[in-house]
Amino acid sequence: MTHYKIALLSFLCLGTSIALGQTIKEDFKPSTKNQPGKEYPQVNSQGYARFRIEAPAADSVRVSLGLGGRGGTLLEKGEDGFWTGTTEGPMDEGFHYYHVNVDGGTFNDPGAKNYYGSVRWESGIEIPAYDQDFYALKDVSHGKVEQILFPSPSTNTSRRAFVYTPPGYAKNPNKKYPVLYLQHGWGENETAWSNQGHANLIMDNLIAEGKIEPFLIVMTYGMTNEIKFGGLRSFDITPFQTVLVDELIPYVDENFRTIADEDHRALAGLSMGGMETKMITLNKPDVFSYYGLLSGGTYAPEDVDKEDVKLIFLSCGSKERPKAIKAATEKLKEAGYPVASYISEGTAHEFQTWRRSLKEMVPKLFTK
Amino acid sequence: MTHYKIALLSFLCLGTSIALGQTIKEDFKPSTKNQPGKEYPQVNSQGYARFRIEAPAADSVRVSLGLGGRGGTLLEKGEDGFWTGTTEGPMDEGFHYYHVNVDGGTFNDPGAKNYYGSVRWESGIEIPAYDQDFYALKDVSHGKVEQILFPSPSTNTSRRAFVYTPPGYAKNPNKKYPVLYLQHGWGENETAWSNQGHANLIMDNLIAEGKIEPFLIVMTYGMTNEIKFGGLRSFDITPFQTVLVDELIPYVDENFRTIADEDHRALAGLSMGGMETKMITLNKPDVFSYYGLLSGGTYAPEDVDKEDVKLIFLSCGSKERPKAIKAATEKLKEAGYPVASYISEGTAHEFQTWRRSLKEMVPKLFTK
Repeated sequence: MTHYKIALLSFLCLGTSIALGQTIKEDFKPSTKNQPGKEYPQVNSQGYARFRIEAPAADSVRVSLGLGGRGGTLLEKGEDGFWTGTTEGPMDEGFHYYHVNVDGGTFNDPGAKNYYGSVRWESGIEIPAYDQDFYALKDVSHGKVEQILFPSPSTNTSRRAFVYTPPGYAKNPNKKYPVLYLQHGWGENETAWSNQGHANLIMDNLIAEGKIEPFLIVMTYGMTNEIKFGGLRSFDITPFQTVLVDELIPYVDENFRTIADEDHRALAGLSMGGMETKMITLNKPDVFSYYGLLSGGTYAPEDVDKEDVKLIFLSCGSKERPKAIKAATEKLKEAGYPVASYISEGTAHEFQTWRRSLKEMVPKLFTK
Repeated sequence: MTHYKIALLSFLCLGTSIALGQTIKEDFKPSTKNQPGKEYPQVNSQGYARFRIEAPAADSVRVSLGLGGRGGTLLEKGEDGFWTGTTEGPMDEGFHYYHVNVDGGTFNDPGAKNYYGSVRWESGIEIPAYDQDFYALKDVSHGKVEQILFPSPSTNTSRRAFVYTPPGYAKNPNKKYPVLYLQHGWGENETAWSNQGHANLIMDNLIAEGKIEPFLIVMTYGMTNEIKFGGLRSFDITPFQTVLVDELIPYVDENFRTIADEDHRALAGLSMGGMETKMITLNKPDVFSYYGLLSGGTYAPEDVDKEDVKLIFLSCGSKERPKAIKAATEKLKEAGYPVASYISEGTAHEFQTWRRSLKEMVPKLFTK
């Protein structure tokens, strides 16, 4: 790249920064979601993301991450064959999915680790959040995330689930635990709550701080048809409800030390997982006593015919529809239901909202 | 594409097939390692692999998989913007890593799932093997693969390992089990033996058939420096040996129901993991009694100063250096050591060799 081009590029970047009223700080560091040893993508202390991708003979490289509605971030080719670029503005705190468009094809960033979302393994990047300590890997006792393969006659296969067992589970062979069944969103799978959400670390940290009593979390794939995720409006809950209620729960109750009754069983989910939670809790009022919808809609008082429900938890990001959450919470309160809600400040329909929602919800579970 | 071009392409393909003395059968099916719902890559019953990747504006798309020394498979662009191509000949049975070169940049195939190898998350493809039944997901009782995070003072972090616990582990709270510590190869990590190797399914199936008594398998990351894998000749085993022997083993013995003595502890590894196995078993003769090198070198009789070693297992693929394995086996036998060896027919330095080696080795462990 000539000096002229560098000067021009710097000027253009500066222009962008001034337009947004902010100078980009040159304190970029590799994202914590990078593959081992990979320097890019990077993030800075303001939340800008910077990309660097090799494709010497390509005509166009674009990253899907960027400011809403602007088509992501177009990278610029350097003479070394690497394409580089920085988001036009700061990104929201937390985890984001993205991918790379190279000459019209969709690929992943070779520097980033992959996370299942949007019905594909996507690249992931982490914008450091002011409150990232609550899901950090710390020097505390750690629970396990156990992969199980449980028999599912209704789908004629062995299905996968992950079970979080808290620290001490193995050493207290007579202790029994409540269980939270926790569902992912559309296009994700049973790996999302651990990989993107760090649900295990959130639990480890809350337990280490004495803020919750230990319990199990079970995470499985929320669609029985592996391929066709579409058609949420005509969605049939029956196949997944059968897997969850008739197959997975009995398997977990038989193979883990659970308190196997409705008073010690919760169901929660994010986005589509919230929709599933609502359908299944209403269809099967005798199975769960704690309900959680995380960016996943609301209950109206007339929906709920379980008079002894112990908690309804509703949440979303402040960039979603917090008014709807607040209004539904008021109505449920007025109708006499035990309800709690939470709005994640400054976040949208993304995992930082759900990490925070989980942290807010779990201390309220299994307390009655 | 015009009819002329299709005809030309067919002729060229036919030409290739005739050159190799084989007509390509058009019975291609999606690889079992594809992402959900993805039609490509595909494999046929002869072991050919076919790729189809969208990149309408690219000038060149090449897949790294192909016949040795020929630079992989160059794809051809269709008028629909998809690049397609078939390997020049059949690939070896089993699992292969690969990646895609798009206009000079290295990416993954958006149709395939990703597997950590070559110090990056690579695309993976599965060529059906005649003996694939032994690592198939069947309707048998399944063990768990448990992710643990164990404290590692020597590396100042919590490190990850996966522990296979067999069917029945949770239901027999007084039973204690032997343990196999099982290491991955260079550029891989602690996910390899489960994801690529299907070690858990191999164990489940052998246990279901009554061919082995259940035991635990522990798999952790075999390098303490996350980035610098290079320099195998000047390799210092001490940091990993400390993690394994002084940190992981005590943690496993405290947190799982193990028979915590050398007679019930094995160490084995593939490739670089075999090199590590050899170094650690010789450095620490009182820790392990069963040794396994899978495409990972050999022991000479004069190496081994543990007179009561219970088994030395050596293996490799027939396309590697089987003569060296056979010669070393003879020498160890002559010197009076208990030794077993295995050669995987028709496979090279790849996971099919190691799946088969594991299946051959585990019935010989913990039998004395």
